[in-house]
Amino acid sequence: MSWKAYTEAHKDRFLNELLDLLRIPSVSARSEHKTDMEACAEAVKARLLEAGADSVTIYPTEGHPIVYGEKITDPSLPTVLVYGHYDVQPADPLELWHSGPFEPTIKDGKIYARGACDDKGQFYMHVKALETMHHNGGLPTNVKFIIEGEEEIGSPNLATFVKANKELLACDVILISDTAMISLDTPSIDVGVRGLTYVEVEVTGPNRDLHSGVYGGAVANPATILCQLIASMHDENNHITIPGFYDDVLVATEAERAKMAEAPFDEEEYKNDLGVKALWGEKGFSTNERTGIRPTLEVNGIWGGYTGEGSKTVLPSKAFAKVSCRLVPNQSSHKIEAMLMEHFKKIAPDYVQVEVRPHHGGEPYVTPIDSIPYKAAAAAILETFGKEPIPVRGGGSIPICALFEQELGVKIVFMGFGLDSDNLHSPNEKFNIDNYYKGIETIPYFHKHFAEMMKG
Amino acid sequence: MSWKAYTEAHKDRFLNELLDLLRIPSVSARSEHKTDMEACAEAVKARLLEAGADSVTIYPTEGHPIVYGEKITDPSLPTVLVYGHYDVQPADPLELWHSGPFEPTIKDGKIYARGACDDKGQFYMHVKALETMHHNGGLPTNVKFIIEGEEEIGSPNLATFVKANKELLACDVILISDTAMISLDTPSIDVGVRGLTYVEVEVTGPNRDLHSGVYGGAVANPATILCQLIASMHDENNHITIPGFYDDVLVATEAERAKMAEAPFDEEEYKNDLGVKALWGEKGFSTNERTGIRPTLEVNGIWGGYTGEGSKTVLPSKAFAKVSCRLVPNQSSHKIEAMLMEHFKKIAPDYVQVEVRPHHGGEPYVTPIDSIPYKAAAAAILETFGKEPIPVRGGGSIPICALFEQELGVKIVFMGFGLDSDNLHSPNEKFNIDNYYKGIETIPYFHKHFAEMMKG
Repeated sequence: MSWKAYTEAHKDRFLNELLDLLRIPSVSARSEHKTDMEACAEAVKARLLEAGADSVTIYPTEGHPIVYGEKITDPSLPTVLVYGHYDVQPADPLELWHSGPFEPTIKDGKIYARGACDDKGQFYMHVKALETMHHNGGLPTNVKFIIEGEEEIGSPNLATFVKANKELLACDVILISDTAMISLDTPSIDVGVRGLTYVEVEVTGPNRDLHSGVYGGAVANPATILCQLIASMHDENNHITIPGFYDDVLVATEAERAKMAEAPFDEEEYKNDLGVKALWGEKGFSTNERTGIRPTLEVNGIWGGYTGEGSKTVLPSKAFAKVSCRLVPNQSSHKIEAMLMEHFKKIAPDYVQVEVRPHHGGEPYVTPIDSIPYKAAAAAILETFGKEPIPVRGGGSIPICALFEQELGVKIVFMGFGLDSDNLHSPNEKFNIDNYYKGIETIPYFHKHFAEMMKG
Repeated sequence: MSWKAYTEAHKDRFLNELLDLLRIPSVSARSEHKTDMEACAEAVKARLLEAGADSVTIYPTEGHPIVYGEKITDPSLPTVLVYGHYDVQPADPLELWHSGPFEPTIKDGKIYARGACDDKGQFYMHVKALETMHHNGGLPTNVKFIIEGEEEIGSPNLATFVKANKELLACDVILISDTAMISLDTPSIDVGVRGLTYVEVEVTGPNRDLHSGVYGGAVANPATILCQLIASMHDENNHITIPGFYDDVLVATEAERAKMAEAPFDEEEYKNDLGVKALWGEKGFSTNERTGIRPTLEVNGIWGGYTGEGSKTVLPSKAFAKVSCRLVPNQSSHKIEAMLMEHFKKIAPDYVQVEVRPHHGGEPYVTPIDSIPYKAAAAAILETFGKEPIPVRGGGSIPICALFEQELGVKIVFMGFGLDSDNLHSPNEKFNIDNYYKGIETIPYFHKHFAEMMKG
């Protein structure tokens, strides 16, 4: 049976298996989900074995377990290492979901659930591609799976595992589906992901919450000061003001920028989709450049004082913010983290105390488009979409990429089948069912073309 | 028996009755406390009747009920209207309390509980003063009590009640214990309270939470913009930048400022108590001036995005702040509210939407020190403290004052027995037991001196 016919024959089961996986609330950031994380790792193991893996092992870590599985067809064939993650972002704010984040719901051809696209739906395409190849002529490659449970919290334990298991993970390419494409009509391949630095800032004013009448005007309000610190970090052109922040940025050439500008982009449609009247960003760069080749500084969360119903006339003791930067080649996550921490402390006035705690980070990564991995991915997409993919720079981050390349000495290729509008990290995350099936259909061709190109 | 001997003989009961009142969580801002509010009003009624009131009525309002009670000794005597409130501020953040906010705890001579000082402990001094006078020679005055349940939310229904019941409330002076004194060693009388304007700001960027990698840098982050809006409202001298904000401020004369500067103030002690290295405030004014004769703008609460454990890389759809201004004579709460709402909308950039909702407000109020009410209060304090009180301007607000004077045509006098350090509106609110007893001892002398002075 052809790969396509097999997928067609089993499509309902392929979908239901994904829905079952989405029902497990595997939120890595929240300690109360520890047992859900373990249950999810067990489910991934079971599905891999059913799909045809020779062996699957769950490796405990200091955090959430890593699932490793493999199918070695023939040691002389090239080996593809598939990386993915079974953990998901927290689901809140819950009240904005139209259906339960862990009760997957199908509507208008889309699966709505936390993790539908990021990354359960996407890594599971590879599990079903394995099954498809396994039952229809066998694999043209060896395949290894490393599916971790801590991507959304910065992969704190994966580096240790990779360094300790280089032989186990030895491969010729790393294949990741954790990014997006422009659309099913305009297939694209992310050639890069941004790096990340994430910190939490705590500003302390008085040692207790105060009455805002009795003390207001005479004691620094940490919420006001935090706002002043954050406001000072962008200038009137929305450049980031931290000294040295842009020093290591690899400036894109005019030729690269011209090529990026060819990707279809409809600003009105983009604004309408987001419900905004005007776009925002660094002066001198287009929207695609702002999310692709430029670093950013964003407030991911802010809180302090009274946030409940009604009013409370309090001058709070503390105010907090979660602040993160997206980084581009050749910025270093550790360097920017240190810079950010130092800057917050340096600009803090002496009537407050500022503490900055690092959360996690990851380095930016770029795949060269003249490499075999990229060419094999492009060939696979041409085969199933009938069109050459457009290379684009993705705005998100996959913290482990730089380390993978460094430790395993191979390139990474991103074959993302999600859409930017899939509400990743937001309420009502979704994944188009058609994109899910298209991914399962396309992935085997990557294995085929990669094996052929490696043979020379 | 002398008033003092009676108080001494019944001191344990006087304390225990207050503790019982403090056990009722009468938080007016939270709708879930509606039945607690009703229970508290019933308790106030019962205690007033036991203390000797002729009649007590609970008047329902559109919000929480008003308790009105009276003891008419002789219609020809002057009448004192005691105003107080049985509602309290929300208790959170709960984790910072050393004992339950509604489980009053006595430690080092202080009662720790929400409402201990603001205002249950203080209005209850008047109930016990009534009992003391009633059982020991009778009252030299008539006394009326209006104890409301909405002071902490801006007294939204009290004005209607006052306007509709002018005859019921007719009096010669309004006596309020809802402020502080410098200390038992340095008695003082607040001659003014600041006004208040309180609004909630909602900044909306994109129509949903976004992935901060996919969209970060290209779409305005409402948390960042809110910080910029708030930061822009103070200049480098901590003057408020809203156009026209200071226009109506009654500038204190050099003579008044010189008199204020005589009040004892130890900056090192003040800083140590608050745990801050440096004080903050409007350039050109002392700490007492900043909290007494100058208006302020404070962030009472701020929130937006992900505020839970760990990290979430989200670009939030919305960010919020609760912002309030303390006002001084002759600023108008309504005028400043309109100014604040307009200013937020005016400075909002077009890539976000800003909504501003008014919470509540109140006008500033000042008592003249050459009035009989002030003189009677000063004479009472001289009698029980052995010292003349210092007149000071309080920083807090009692929204209903200006309306009382306007509708009832009489002056208000503030006899506060709390301390600024009593953690009003903060965790671990407290009230010194000695101050409580000293208040009960002093209040009858106010009635005595007021009656004598009114006779001429």
